[in-house]
Amino acid sequence: MTMQPSDKALVPFVSVDHMMKLIHHIGLEQMMTGIAAEIERDFKRWESFDKTPRVPAHSPHGVIELMPTSDGEAYGFKYVNGHPKNTSEGLQTVTAFGLLADVYTGYPTLLTEMTILTALRTAATSALVGKYLAPKGATTMAMIGNGAQSEFQCLAFKALCGIDTVRLYDTDPAATAKCAANLAGCGLTVVQCKTPEEVILGAQIITTCTADKKNATILTDNMVGAGVHINAIGGDCPGKTELHRDILLRSDIFVEYPEQTRIEGEIQALDADHPVIEMWQVMTGQAQGRKDDRQITLFDSVGFAIEDFSALRYVKQAIKGTKFFETLDMLADPDDPRDLFGMVNRAK
Amino acid sequence: MTMQPSDKALVPFVSVDHMMKLIHHIGLEQMMTGIAAEIERDFKRWESFDKTPRVPAHSPHGVIELMPTSDGEAYGFKYVNGHPKNTSEGLQTVTAFGLLADVYTGYPTLLTEMTILTALRTAATSALVGKYLAPKGATTMAMIGNGAQSEFQCLAFKALCGIDTVRLYDTDPAATAKCAANLAGCGLTVVQCKTPEEVILGAQIITTCTADKKNATILTDNMVGAGVHINAIGGDCPGKTELHRDILLRSDIFVEYPEQTRIEGEIQALDADHPVIEMWQVMTGQAQGRKDDRQITLFDSVGFAIEDFSALRYVKQAIKGTKFFETLDMLADPDDPRDLFGMVNRAK
Repeated sequence: MTMQPSDKALVPFVSVDHMMKLIHHIGLEQMMTGIAAEIERDFKRWESFDKTPRVPAHSPHGVIELMPTSDGEAYGFKYVNGHPKNTSEGLQTVTAFGLLADVYTGYPTLLTEMTILTALRTAATSALVGKYLAPKGATTMAMIGNGAQSEFQCLAFKALCGIDTVRLYDTDPAATAKCAANLAGCGLTVVQCKTPEEVILGAQIITTCTADKKNATILTDNMVGAGVHINAIGGDCPGKTELHRDILLRSDIFVEYPEQTRIEGEIQALDADHPVIEMWQVMTGQAQGRKDDRQITLFDSVGFAIEDFSALRYVKQAIKGTKFFETLDMLADPDDPRDLFGMVNRAK
Repeated sequence: MTMQPSDKALVPFVSVDHMMKLIHHIGLEQMMTGIAAEIERDFKRWESFDKTPRVPAHSPHGVIELMPTSDGEAYGFKYVNGHPKNTSEGLQTVTAFGLLADVYTGYPTLLTEMTILTALRTAATSALVGKYLAPKGATTMAMIGNGAQSEFQCLAFKALCGIDTVRLYDTDPAATAKCAANLAGCGLTVVQCKTPEEVILGAQIITTCTADKKNATILTDNMVGAGVHINAIGGDCPGKTELHRDILLRSDIFVEYPEQTRIEGEIQALDADHPVIEMWQVMTGQAQGRKDDRQITLFDSVGFAIEDFSALRYVKQAIKGTKFFETLDMLADPDDPRDLFGMVNRAK
């Protein structure tokens, strides 16, 4: 009788360090492209997923959420917090980790950091949607908000939508300088801008990703011309929006999961029955994406559990045969399932 | 600038091996007594907890559940599966792990195996409730169902309620022999019994803990005499009960969280408004426990998130200053919270 845990009792774990090494091993743009392909595949079989709203625990300091989903074969969830006040204390606003499990046995099959992975899947989702909605031949993106998500957005749109120029703006010029420095040498023309009016000049795609937890108006109506695609990332919780209501009313609005977006997204400013188009229906051809080159399309993105599921599945495949994980002795595995006590006793 | 993650980014992790070593370091009975003290303390401040029903993902093969709770300072959740068919494939019916986090920052502070820890907290809860409900001077417990939970139950009732004799019965005599062998030398008189009628002879406490996922009748009405305390562990999901309805009707029924017990416990066989007594109210003195020595008391136990929370908090304290944990690099922690990309880039 061996005291070694069986294979199933050992859970592969991808640490922050291993995730960074995996990204460099694969290449950041290639990895976001691969994750986008998984997301597209999963959006196209949207109806085969268990879709539960997030399970939040609110406090005056922030929120801790569990985001579970399942396709009947694999089960995944993400733990994620949102604490805007953390930044001022030198901590991350958002940290996350995720887990995959086998629905047939209930045994976990992957544990991974997801702070970095969430940045990749968010950018991959945005650019994947951009592929369906951005005007043909778009070359220039305005990136409003130059925080932790901004570089990933720029490179995902380069990799998936073929943009060659990004124009950067943030209320804090230091953030813009940081973003521009990080993007140097990546193959994009990078233009640092000083005002919201300047940043949108010549942009066919406008991405907004700011962190204020309040109803802020970063874009006003007269700034948005015909034919533009707006990728709105930052309106992602109740009371937090980025766009003026009049822009919403001129746009065709595309969402991930309406039940969640109406609570958390830009459209919380609109009537509860304001028409929206679900992206999975665009991807399956059941709904139309961009109709013409005058239309303003708006992706009101809040992030959804299926995107995390797709990213987790991507990582589970990607680490196979690599050294970018360790195994955790996380599941008790007695030789006789009824003899948990004996296993504990023999360990003495 | 250092690339070492900060303290907060490293999450203490208790593996199965470390959990077993911790148990032997502290002593199993002492540890269950310590966990019971934490559970009692938390039950006495019941109203300060966020109480959410479990978040289940059902499949034809079993269920995967997330059980979150919070007291406003700490947040905890348990991942647990229930797959009765697993045993026949050499796997555990139930595996679990748990997490604690700091509500103020949202950062996880403990990750631990919970398959073994759940066995301890379940037995600790049973025996703690036994302290309030079992007849004074009880010395003998009948243990019906001699599977993975049975030895923990016997030793918790020894440690917390002072019993000196256990009588064992299982439909499979091999399980009874396993349980008796495991309990040899632990200070209990152990009697192996061949029938349900035999096992209850002279017992003041009857614990039922069988694994059948069906409405089974292990105890019939005429087997239960006046004054007995019944500790019913095995009725713990819809369609799974162990006691005849007539026993329930003769008993005063005590529960953890009525909303959950009415779905999962023995009382799913009764009307939705059948009176039950909440154990936290017994512990705070707002409700009466055992009234007299003729009364049949029944603890209809299904397990509740607060018990896991108490056990997690116990472990977090217990590992301090020991070597029974490792630290996981689970949370990305850039020096500048806005510069996640730069952190990834510099790792190249």
